Amino acid sequence: MKRITGGVTAAKGFQAAGVEASIKYQNRKDMAMIYSQSPCVLAGTFTSNVVKAAPVLWDKKVVEESPFGQAVIVNAGIANACTGKEGFAYCSRTAQKAAGVLGIPAEAVLVASTGVIGMQLPIERIEAGIEKLAGARADTEEAGTKAAEAIMTTDTRSKQAAAEIEIGGVKVRIGGMCKGSGMIHPNMCTMLAFVTTDAVISKELLTKAVKADVIDTYNMISVDGDTSTNDTLLVLANGMAGNPEIQEDTPEFEAFCEALHDVNESLAKMMAGDGEGATALFETKVVGAATKEDARILSKSVICSSLTKAAIYGHDANWGRILCALGYSGVNFDPEKIELFFEGKENRIQIYKDGKAAPYSEEEATKILSEPEVRVLVDMKMGSETATAWGCDLTYDYVKINADYRS
Amino acid sequence: MKRITGGVTAAKGFQAAGVEASIKYQNRKDMAMIYSQSPCVLAGTFTSNVVKAAPVLWDKKVVEESPFGQAVIVNAGIANACTGKEGFAYCSRTAQKAAGVLGIPAEAVLVASTGVIGMQLPIERIEAGIEKLAGARADTEEAGTKAAEAIMTTDTRSKQAAAEIEIGGVKVRIGGMCKGSGMIHPNMCTMLAFVTTDAVISKELLTKAVKADVIDTYNMISVDGDTSTNDTLLVLANGMAGNPEIQEDTPEFEAFCEALHDVNESLAKMMAGDGEGATALFETKVVGAATKEDARILSKSVICSSLTKAAIYGHDANWGRILCALGYSGVNFDPEKIELFFEGKENRIQIYKDGKAAPYSEEEATKILSEPEVRVLVDMKMGSETATAWGCDLTYDYVKINADYRS
Repeated sequence: MKRITGGVTAAKGFQAAGVEASIKYQNRKDMAMIYSQSPCVLAGTFTSNVVKAAPVLWDKKVVEESPFGQAVIVNAGIANACTGKEGFAYCSRTAQKAAGVLGIPAEAVLVASTGVIGMQLPIERIEAGIEKLAGARADTEEAGTKAAEAIMTTDTRSKQAAAEIEIGGVKVRIGGMCKGSGMIHPNMCTMLAFVTTDAVISKELLTKAVKADVIDTYNMISVDGDTSTNDTLLVLANGMAGNPEIQEDTPEFEAFCEALHDVNESLAKMMAGDGEGATALFETKVVGAATKEDARILSKSVICSSLTKAAIYGHDANWGRILCALGYSGVNFDPEKIELFFEGKENRIQIYKDGKAAPYSEEEATKILSEPEVRVLVDMKMGSETATAWGCDLTYDYVKINADYRS
Repeated sequence: MKRITGGVTAAKGFQAAGVEASIKYQNRKDMAMIYSQSPCVLAGTFTSNVVKAAPVLWDKKVVEESPFGQAVIVNAGIANACTGKEGFAYCSRTAQKAAGVLGIPAEAVLVASTGVIGMQLPIERIEAGIEKLAGARADTEEAGTKAAEAIMTTDTRSKQAAAEIEIGGVKVRIGGMCKGSGMIHPNMCTMLAFVTTDAVISKELLTKAVKADVIDTYNMISVDGDTSTNDTLLVLANGMAGNPEIQEDTPEFEAFCEALHDVNESLAKMMAGDGEGATALFETKVVGAATKEDARILSKSVICSSLTKAAIYGHDANWGRILCALGYSGVNFDPEKIELFFEGKENRIQIYKDGKAAPYSEEEATKILSEPEVRVLVDMKMGSETATAWGCDLTYDYVKINADYRS
């Protein structure tokens, strides 16, 4: 597997665009399109929130019932959540407009929205945006970047990742884009992430690969513990690489899964590191856990702890808060046996052992906690299972952003 | 039941004191004592965190095994958590010192600590503090207030509540004090709360009353979602009111439980309203739930939502975040059927109905959200069960306090 530049246009046959449509923001790109020159096999995972935004309901139906998908229309600014029947009708109108402009069936159009909850979409501006998007779409890396920029809300940077593998002597690519950066505590998948691939793969096998991978990627990040109403991951495979079809339980499937995982993990980490107001990515790796699920629960409990996140912001080695977060996670363990380390780019220091502080240097600890990527390593000493979770620090800016988000 | 002034010295035979002992803070009271002139029946609930502070382990043993209790020694500044065997030995030394000074058995002394995790207690200063406390103790309201002040950490005000009932023609009193204000997301009980009563009641019945009441009081508050390693609620009943012993399933027991609930709820609400950095108490009442447990989960999910809490701080009627928090709580419901209201001191306005925004006035909503106590009412339309949870807003000051807490 090789990492490559680019995002949703990295794979063959995919076009993208990002344009200004004045949905809610002014003077910035706020609508994006992904279009495949040929029909795609679809896989998707969606929010577990009982309150599901209209686009989630629309996309679930398309992924489950349509024979194929060929375009995705995304807007930023308004989430089209808690908008009743009217909101769902707007999804349908969006799909119909795109279908007409692109010459594909409306059931092949996926839609996604992000932004404030409770407002209705300005459907005429959405429709005008679709015409602009159709005219602007291209298969260049630049077009992919414009799309990634157009789906941002409080994100400070656009987020793309891509990888390349070889299957049967043929180059196969996977690329994706996503956006955070608040209301991020995905359960089944992240807020909005779109992954495209030119691999030849069945819907069944693609779905299997995607569902298995979200558990250790998007589901292991959190910015604020709030699971959004709009969480959506869509994966489109158009088969244009022309590789021999990927079969289950083969080295080729393994290679595909590895590349998919790399793209998903990269996107997930970008979202965590660019969480609202964040100044650092905060990673917690748990090793030596009795079960994989224990490792996941423990690592996620630490990166979700408000007190720990505030301490990271203050570059304060207040490790008691990490112990505390492990302790209330719901997983049982012996506090006298576990060990705790801080990992910097260049060194690792032991913080806790035998039920109490290890003799570490506060200065060294503060130095590690001042890096842009802060890593905590916890050894549970109970088994051999491992998991990693990603979050960010809790800052003044998180509060600022969310105290006036609507205004 | 009648509310009265005072705290832990409101009930007959209880003395208290608060003194400066320089445990970690300088120039402020940081040690407190509660002492009963006669032996007390004990009840207690403690943190569910796997990582339990040494005083929690000590008190659990005293509550479960000692025939009676007679004193509580509390220090602020250092939590005596994650301190290994040495930390536990300090609990024992604290109890022995108090026992010697007060002339009671060491097994009748309860201890509690709050503050930073991982540091050892300066035991000589603790012992010196105990001598000062013993000399200063008194049964006055003023002495109770000094004790309540001495246990504060980041609290901005001391917290006391008391109530009086009549049993068999005899006045019975219950009084308490507690402290917050960070790492508050009690599970089994709150961080530190102490309740005294002069009622004649068996240990068994007292325990029953306490365990039943924490579920709807301390366990329904949250400041930051972090369940402390030190959560402790201790209830001491010395029987000095001389009432005919309270029996189960009688109007007298009901009256006692009602007064106990009033004291506990008052203390719990004070902790929530004085959460670190808070500018408002944030209450969410869920009515019409299918089960009591559903009502509790739903109301707590809303008051724990970082995004909702930040919106309250911004006086922003961003009700979508409330819907979102209900939706990810784990309880199933139909978003098209539920109704949402904001309740101010003087009026109630409907915000959400039929799956979308109700036609409310933003100005009126902002006005309600600017009050010092913000109330959200949710009608699930699924049954008749009700629960109320209390939290606070999320502010710059929460981040500030917790980014430099140790320094």
